[in-house]
Amino acid sequence: MTKIAILGGSGYTAVELIKLLLRHPHAEIVAITSRDESTPLIAELHPSLARRLELRCETFNPDRLIAQGVQCAFGCLPHGVSMSMIPRLLERGMRVVDLSADYRLRDPNVYAQWYGESHADLAHLAQAVYGLPEIYGDDLPGAQLVANPGCYPQTAILGLAPLVSGKHVDLRSLIIDSKSGVSGGGRTPRLTFHFPECNESVCAYGVGTHRHTPEIEQTLIDLAGEPLQVLFTPHLIPMDRGILSTIYAQPTRSFSEAQLMDLYCEFYAGAPFVRVVKHLPATKESVGTNFLDITVRVVRERIMVIASEDNLIRGASGVAVQNFNRMYGYPETMGLL
Amino acid sequence: MTKIAILGGSGYTAVELIKLLLRHPHAEIVAITSRDESTPLIAELHPSLARRLELRCETFNPDRLIAQGVQCAFGCLPHGVSMSMIPRLLERGMRVVDLSADYRLRDPNVYAQWYGESHADLAHLAQAVYGLPEIYGDDLPGAQLVANPGCYPQTAILGLAPLVSGKHVDLRSLIIDSKSGVSGGGRTPRLTFHFPECNESVCAYGVGTHRHTPEIEQTLIDLAGEPLQVLFTPHLIPMDRGILSTIYAQPTRSFSEAQLMDLYCEFYAGAPFVRVVKHLPATKESVGTNFLDITVRVVRERIMVIASEDNLIRGASGVAVQNFNRMYGYPETMGLL
Amino acid sequence: MTKIAILGGSGYTAVELIKLLLRHPHAEIVAITSRDESTPLIAELHPSLARRLELRCETFNPDRLIAQGVQCAFGCLPHGVSMSMIPRLLERGMRVVDLSADYRLRDPNVYAQWYGESHADLAHLAQAVYGLPEIYGDDLPGAQLVANPGCYPQTAILGLAPLVSGKHVDLRSLIIDSKSGVSGGGRTPRLTFHFPECNESVCAYGVGTHRHTPEIEQTLIDLAGEPLQVLFTPHLIPMDRGILSTIYAQPTRSFSEAQLMDLYCEFYAGAPFVRVVKHLPATKESVGTNFLDITVRVVRERIMVIASEDNLIRGASGVAVQNFNRMYGYPETMGLL
Amino acid sequence: MTKIAILGGSGYTAVELIKLLLRHPHAEIVAITSRDESTPLIAELHPSLARRLELRCETFNPDRLIAQGVQCAFGCLPHGVSMSMIPRLLERGMRVVDLSADYRLRDPNVYAQWYGESHADLAHLAQAVYGLPEIYGDDLPGAQLVANPGCYPQTAILGLAPLVSGKHVDLRSLIIDSKSGVSGGGRTPRLTFHFPECNESVCAYGVGTHRHTPEIEQTLIDLAGEPLQVLFTPHLIPMDRGILSTIYAQPTRSFSEAQLMDLYCEFYAGAPFVRVVKHLPATKESVGTNFLDITVRVVRERIMVIASEDNLIRGASGVAVQNFNRMYGYPETMGLL
Repeated sequence: MTKIAILGGSGYTAVELIKLLLRHPHAEIVAITSRDESTPLIAELHPSLARRLELRCETFNPDRLIAQGVQCAFGCLPHGVSMSMIPRLLERGMRVVDLSADYRLRDPNVYAQWYGESHADLAHLAQAVYGLPEIYGDDLPGAQLVANPGCYPQTAILGLAPLVSGKHVDLRSLIIDSKSGVSGGGRTPRLTFHFPECNESVCAYGVGTHRHTPEIEQTLIDLAGEPLQVLFTPHLIPMDRGILSTIYAQPTRSFSEAQLMDLYCEFYAGAPFVRVVKHLPATKESVGTNFLDITVRVVRERIMVIASEDNLIRGASGVAVQNFNRMYGYPETMGLL
Repeated sequence: MTKIAILGGSGYTAVELIKLLLRHPHAEIVAITSRDESTPLIAELHPSLARRLELRCETFNPDRLIAQGVQCAFGCLPHGVSMSMIPRLLERGMRVVDLSADYRLRDPNVYAQWYGESHADLAHLAQAVYGLPEIYGDDLPGAQLVANPGCYPQTAILGLAPLVSGKHVDLRSLIIDSKSGVSGGGRTPRLTFHFPECNESVCAYGVGTHRHTPEIEQTLIDLAGEPLQVLFTPHLIPMDRGILSTIYAQPTRSFSEAQLMDLYCEFYAGAPFVRVVKHLPATKESVGTNFLDITVRVVRERIMVIASEDNLIRGASGVAVQNFNRMYGYPETMGLL
Repeated sequence: MTKIAILGGSGYTAVELIKLLLRHPHAEIVAITSRDESTPLIAELHPSLARRLELRCETFNPDRLIAQGVQCAFGCLPHGVSMSMIPRLLERGMRVVDLSADYRLRDPNVYAQWYGESHADLAHLAQAVYGLPEIYGDDLPGAQLVANPGCYPQTAILGLAPLVSGKHVDLRSLIIDSKSGVSGGGRTPRLTFHFPECNESVCAYGVGTHRHTPEIEQTLIDLAGEPLQVLFTPHLIPMDRGILSTIYAQPTRSFSEAQLMDLYCEFYAGAPFVRVVKHLPATKESVGTNFLDITVRVVRERIMVIASEDNLIRGASGVAVQNFNRMYGYPETMGLL
Repeated sequence: MTKIAILGGSGYTAVELIKLLLRHPHAEIVAITSRDESTPLIAELHPSLARRLELRCETFNPDRLIAQGVQCAFGCLPHGVSMSMIPRLLERGMRVVDLSADYRLRDPNVYAQWYGESHADLAHLAQAVYGLPEIYGDDLPGAQLVANPGCYPQTAILGLAPLVSGKHVDLRSLIIDSKSGVSGGGRTPRLTFHFPECNESVCAYGVGTHRHTPEIEQTLIDLAGEPLQVLFTPHLIPMDRGILSTIYAQPTRSFSEAQLMDLYCEFYAGAPFVRVVKHLPATKESVGTNFLDITVRVVRERIMVIASEDNLIRGASGVAVQNFNRMYGYPETMGLL
């Protein structure tokens, strides 16, 4: 049994994580932290958890967490905040899976450029493992600090990995057109996410400026072995959950769809949560699960990849549990099927 | 041509009002006020108005409005704010249609009890006409100040008026179970209206405490000629617009559905915007219009009335234009069909 | 390990049942039947099940099911169809949980009156247990045939049971105003459920005629010990899942809210899936779970009960598993938390 | 006053057309045809039209339409059906705006290839004018037969026209990633559009096969003066209405965003319904109107265009009225503001 703390209990990734860990036979949630000085019951923050977890939130106190026997913490805090709190846990020997962006980008200059502040924990940044199991899975067992990947990036990276690794596409041609449900924006009310504003409407946002861009590029560069840039365009879709990324790439030579499907099936043969499908996936087919669905097409000589996931589960809390499983040597699918 | 000012340009009732008045051959919007000191273009507040109205918002200045020739102002301000600003226009001889709740309740004690503050304009409160044309239409032509009715109350009052006027129902038996789209909550972001919170969900709210309760009772008491109370339960529905009220009443004697349908058709024979229909209306059938749809049933000896409207149009901005038409002697349906 | 067959694999209750049973440590799905002569893979009917269940549908053949070792069948067939197929399994000694309406109504005359056809299996009708665990739980362990309750009725019955059993309400005053997501209508396309027709709209339907009416009355009559009728009004809400029932009842004497809350907490003290809550529940809080949330209010001397559930899980497939657990002596919550 | 017939009254484009024409001072709807032999009232097909149009549908009879004085017919029939009915009107001297695809593609071989049947009216196909006013507006005044454009194509064509005409982009690089509300699929129930199937979900469809592809290419080839192909990917979005197309193109030389915005403003200077905007448009901003919103960006050296419209109005019925206005010499915006 691994004793777990969740840092930042009030958001959507936190409640999804709790629901997953409650089903995990070797995970025990012993603490949930919250800024709220009134230390509410977790079921007051998330009424869906009534009768399922009778835990009261506590303020963040590393020594108290250690005293409670916490071995692994999941960070569900905003970026910028994580990197000020997590070092205090790492120093005490705790292992951490951080769901924020703070430890994802290896280069602190890139972090500063895209997130607008200097990195506050360079020491640990260097040791962080980017928690994308299908790509960096071998680095997880020993890791003390795992940077859980962003939701959009997983669809983009896993959608392109077989093509980029195999040098099958022109690296200057990569376009990722993504569509996401609104929960990806978090739980803080803002006009953009005010129901009458975004319901029954679609728009693009963060055009050319979305912070997931360098994250997507970092792993694709690892896979390609050379520099590249992607054109990533997110869109807000009037639904709670789900991300569908439609990816366009210019092939370096001619491929048939059958060849590409074989390539993808082979590349992901050992990946229990990547489903290479023949049909055009709808996000609803993976919502509520940790699966990421991918299909490939050849259209007018261009390669198209469609990758789809639940932004809160596969996109965040589910892959966090998948990383945890690998870190602790549990079966990779434990608690996730 | 009547020159018009809209007070409070940033909300949903304001943009609906503007779209209606742009189609009105005898209305000219000459001014829109806003708290925003940067005096934005109205199309900056409401991008849907680009190319349709090139007007810059101004701060509220009664003398400047008079100087611009404004004859009639529509108040789209929050309650509490209206009653501090509107007197300054009335004193200058302007006519006002107020969409807030401030002038709807005749009894300032009831206002204080339900809205939590003392009324700030008793002088004008006494002269205000409750702007429900089907009931108080004869009082509109001479009115200087019209209190536009609330959205829920219109479905409840017009749904019950024929029964209550005719003393056909037990006045202690009235139950109004209402379902409303989220735009009724206004444009200020709050957790309750945060898309991932209210989407794909239904809940009741304001049980026993909703401020529209005394407003519904006031007019029904006028019609009944005796005291009464209603049990009014609003519910939040995951859609932009529309209100459906399902009303239950115990009849004082036995009625057939045919008799009741005749009663309703007769009661509303001269009402161009009340459609008495045979089928069970869906809110979508009146959304985008100023129509209020009503049907009647007899089920297990109880009378059921279903009344349906677009909360922003019939529920607010449309009936405001209908009141304006009556005030100025324009055809009642002008600009509304 | 209990070997299970699911009859009728293509609908929504079937896929929810499969997902629940896949998590149940003592249930093994060995067969899924379908009318489709092409015997599709279940993941072809429900792409969300890819990688989770590799089973091919088969045509309905009782002897083959027996040969496969099926001990318990869950019927996810339409009413009328169930009662022609299920007897053939019962005769062979199989136990059955039927999710259709065919065995819920004890009186075949009532069935004929509301469902428009004569009952085809009177022999087994007499032995069927109505599968509402909180009321008839003691009858489940020995039952060979369990009639799984309807979705709306569970909210109505469990919402009213404490009041009706205790004779605390006037039995002629019961009004149940229900709001349901669209999945309750099943998977067969119809204009009513065509997305652009029902999206962004609310309407009442089945006014006075909904088949769940006699089902609600049957159990409430059991609890009251005397005849009664309810006024039940369903409404279609633009969301996938969830039912909220707002229930109105005239008390026989004066009650405070605190007294009623105590009454409900006590009545449901041993019910692991009924959460008596203090706040006004939103359907989203129970969606995805087998919980039914209830709260009570006193408003203008009338009692109001609000009961909320996921129509596909608590309303159908979840309570089916709950019934199965009781039938086989498994912990009642097994596979459901 | 131009007397109008609407062919095929039961669908979504028909009801939108009716609502627009009811506001048009020089249009009078004298006939609506329907297959339904029971000749229903139009308000029975579309309850929203109650009290607004008291017309009974009639079966299609060209001589009767002529006898009723119909001068112009709007075809709201499925493709394949239009081309069998419309010639009979054209032969009698009627003018026609056809909202189907039957007369849009100049080359009948292309029609056969994409629509799977031979064209049944080659004689009139040759004279048809493609009804995109911003491009072919000068051909409309004399036209007897106007082929109203498809919804997606308008966003793609108008989104790319300034770039393609000016030879500013590589014609092999054009990618159009479109997102559309469900009403674009029409009013016939199908599993794909069954509410619980498509709600809360996004998927791509018609990848490489969508029939709007040759239509987009036809006009862009006219503008480019040379052959080209586009990669067009539609997606289904869980909302009623709206299309957003995100368009990617490789520039032939370097452009700044300011230069491109100027190019677009200039190109569309005389187009009353094309709004070139600075912000990233949301579909909601044009829903309910005949406006098409466009913005341009330069991202990582690629040009991105975002074009947005209401698929039923600008995408179909609104542009049909715009074409009608041009055909008859009415002000282009009449009835559309």
